[in-house]
Amino acid sequence: MIILASMSKKLLLILSLFISYCSYAQNKIVVFQSDFGLKDGAVSAMKGVAMGVSPHLKLYDLTHEIPAYNIWEASYRLYQTVTYWPAGTVFVSVVDPGVGTSRKSVVLKTNTGQYIVTPDNGTLTLVSESLGIAEIRQIDENVNRRRGSEKSYTFHGRDVYAYTAARLAAGVITYEQVGPELPKEVVKLPYQKAELENGKLKGTIDILDVQYGNLWTNIGDDLIKPLNLKVGDVLHLIVYHNGKKAYEGDAPYSSTFGQVAKGKPLAYLNSLLQLSFALNQGSFADVYKIGSGSEWSVLVSRK
Amino acid sequence: MIILASMSKKLLLILSLFISYCSYAQNKIVVFQSDFGLKDGAVSAMKGVAMGVSPHLKLYDLTHEIPAYNIWEASYRLYQTVTYWPAGTVFVSVVDPGVGTSRKSVVLKTNTGQYIVTPDNGTLTLVSESLGIAEIRQIDENVNRRRGSEKSYTFHGRDVYAYTAARLAAGVITYEQVGPELPKEVVKLPYQKAELENGKLKGTIDILDVQYGNLWTNIGDDLIKPLNLKVGDVLHLIVYHNGKKAYEGDAPYSSTFGQVAKGKPLAYLNSLLQLSFALNQGSFADVYKIGSGSEWSVLVSRK
Amino acid sequence: MIILASMSKKLLLILSLFISYCSYAQNKIVVFQSDFGLKDGAVSAMKGVAMGVSPHLKLYDLTHEIPAYNIWEASYRLYQTVTYWPAGTVFVSVVDPGVGTSRKSVVLKTNTGQYIVTPDNGTLTLVSESLGIAEIRQIDENVNRRRGSEKSYTFHGRDVYAYTAARLAAGVITYEQVGPELPKEVVKLPYQKAELENGKLKGTIDILDVQYGNLWTNIGDDLIKPLNLKVGDVLHLIVYHNGKKAYEGDAPYSSTFGQVAKGKPLAYLNSLLQLSFALNQGSFADVYKIGSGSEWSVLVSRK
Repeated sequence: MIILASMSKKLLLILSLFISYCSYAQNKIVVFQSDFGLKDGAVSAMKGVAMGVSPHLKLYDLTHEIPAYNIWEASYRLYQTVTYWPAGTVFVSVVDPGVGTSRKSVVLKTNTGQYIVTPDNGTLTLVSESLGIAEIRQIDENVNRRRGSEKSYTFHGRDVYAYTAARLAAGVITYEQVGPELPKEVVKLPYQKAELENGKLKGTIDILDVQYGNLWTNIGDDLIKPLNLKVGDVLHLIVYHNGKKAYEGDAPYSSTFGQVAKGKPLAYLNSLLQLSFALNQGSFADVYKIGSGSEWSVLVSRK
Repeated sequence: MIILASMSKKLLLILSLFISYCSYAQNKIVVFQSDFGLKDGAVSAMKGVAMGVSPHLKLYDLTHEIPAYNIWEASYRLYQTVTYWPAGTVFVSVVDPGVGTSRKSVVLKTNTGQYIVTPDNGTLTLVSESLGIAEIRQIDENVNRRRGSEKSYTFHGRDVYAYTAARLAAGVITYEQVGPELPKEVVKLPYQKAELENGKLKGTIDILDVQYGNLWTNIGDDLIKPLNLKVGDVLHLIVYHNGKKAYEGDAPYSSTFGQVAKGKPLAYLNSLLQLSFALNQGSFADVYKIGSGSEWSVLVSRK
Repeated sequence: MIILASMSKKLLLILSLFISYCSYAQNKIVVFQSDFGLKDGAVSAMKGVAMGVSPHLKLYDLTHEIPAYNIWEASYRLYQTVTYWPAGTVFVSVVDPGVGTSRKSVVLKTNTGQYIVTPDNGTLTLVSESLGIAEIRQIDENVNRRRGSEKSYTFHGRDVYAYTAARLAAGVITYEQVGPELPKEVVKLPYQKAELENGKLKGTIDILDVQYGNLWTNIGDDLIKPLNLKVGDVLHLIVYHNGKKAYEGDAPYSSTFGQVAKGKPLAYLNSLLQLSFALNQGSFADVYKIGSGSEWSVLVSRK
């Protein structure tokens, strides 16, 4: 190997810049959620704006199939997913029936280090409870708004939220430069909390596991522990819709779907360790017409 | 810090190559559009071919839910989206009912610096008008075709378009190496242009904002300006299907959806600053059976 | 240009590390397939876990619209797609009706150098035949499992498969560290092989080209060659469902769809060079109620 006695200052400078640039390029992740669907160009336009901020960003999706204007589900999908992404990830959630009204545009930083850019309209209900609020700032739209977008009243998702998220994730602005800090509170949707009372579990059907039609409640494993459930123990389930009985039946507590016959109900812990109900290779929601959200509650007892 | 008096030539060479490589790796974006849907492996195969050209490309989507063979909608989605992506972005659009016929395979460069790889079958109608044609070249399939694909008559999208787009975006070929330059003209679909006549606006319902069922016309804000519309002014809208009246009613000009009652019509400027019509939290298209495309025209006047 | 006589050891070290890091960062592709759909956070959670392993991974999708529990289709989509991605790509396929039962979790390496992380439940049927098995290893879940996931019985996709795929693709573990090597055999779904007998072709309708409703058989061009088919030659097609005749008719062998009138049947080689049947600008599957999978066979002869 031949040894050189010199190296140009310029090259050294380039290298240093390059190193700082490259370390900079790490972990610059933006994750998008909306109720836009994937049939038009709206999601792509948001990503294009982000790529215009920095081509070194990595852009992924949570889902764009939130039912139109369904803030509860937007809140739930964030709650279900945010924590699996590394600290520093910036989420953009645009489910915004009140676009153009006085709801605030905010960036919340969770105690686990993820950021969520969203209208403060209830979307932050569940994440603020589960992950906690490290800090919350209102977006200053005078500085954090795509140039040339001032005339457009209706696409905050692209011109403010995607743009701000991209600049934050790319390090073009600091979190402080998003805008003024707000009190650590968010707009919350009302819903029935999970509880254990006289040996009976109460809760809400948070969501359907859409593809399979399973019922996911908000009753976590910590609440279930005192019942000392073992695989094979039979639970008695009542589902109420707006307080009216909609389903009643038994479901053995199972560690695998295959423990009951095809089409039969079972109880299990889902991947979020919450009490859930399913039919083996069938749709509980379709067969028994069960929905999800704050109107759907459950009462579960040991048989 | 200890100081070295030497550095190897070899390392220096590696570093230089590395720097040029890395600066090379910036902004190498390919965006895919098709009518393939996301249920099979077609889109993934296109991306796999692109990754085989260079793993440093960044692959994104516009949409793959263009209705089968709907060239108008392909044209519209490009028009709606291309401009939000940075110059240098390479789009691939594969909506190709005439695959295997004599339509040309081309790469258009817009005046704003984006590239579009597509069959020249009308897909370029709206982008060529809105962004202009900087240059257009026919793909020379003798050189720009994936090896081993010569026997396959039906998947130009993967073997020619995705492959050529990836090589162009990755810098494996220059734009000139795509193939011979063509006259600056493209195959165009006929449609009703927007116009202001005696204080009345005429135009086409370009597209439905699919998720919400809003009607997006091709009447831009420049054409509307002479009317001096203020928020609250009432517009009278007539929708024609193939010249026959399909809807007639009033819609206040609004800056937010919340300005009218739930289910009521309103007029607004969409994110492309075009005159649009919606029902607040409802679907105009579904409720009044309105479609989009060149068969659907509108007449709008001040009340 | 000014010449320096020195360079810090530290910088040199950083540079070397950086170079090895960057060369490391090449081609770290993970491609996801599942029957989860895109409406909830399951796919995003898998990608979040992968990004937590290394933000330098490039995450793409095959499809997440495999019909629930349809192992045949999972197998087919891999067969259709894997080969278009570069060697070294790591696929994750999670269609797992037997989750929690005794099916093995494996990583197969094909003879073409791609990896597939999946339950060994039939998903590997077609890829193992077409690309061959270079090696197959069982995932040792004691080491290859996301921390904190031990209590969760139901989301192997995220906690074991996505996690292991990400670690393998990122070089955190070697292929050997996945777990113990297994005999080169996989669980296989039964199906009718393609064959040429007395001038007649027999085979299975592997899959529908979903978006268009075309019938794709497993009869490859090698089997067709002895028939010396020319464009315009008429084929006689019989489709059987569980052995019972479901369709019978003629279809000219075509190189483009435009060679027959709109709505008329034609035979052609698809992009995988397999004998396929379509209606020009129509859906063969919908019009004649034809399905796909091992229950649907064909008999094709020259007229």
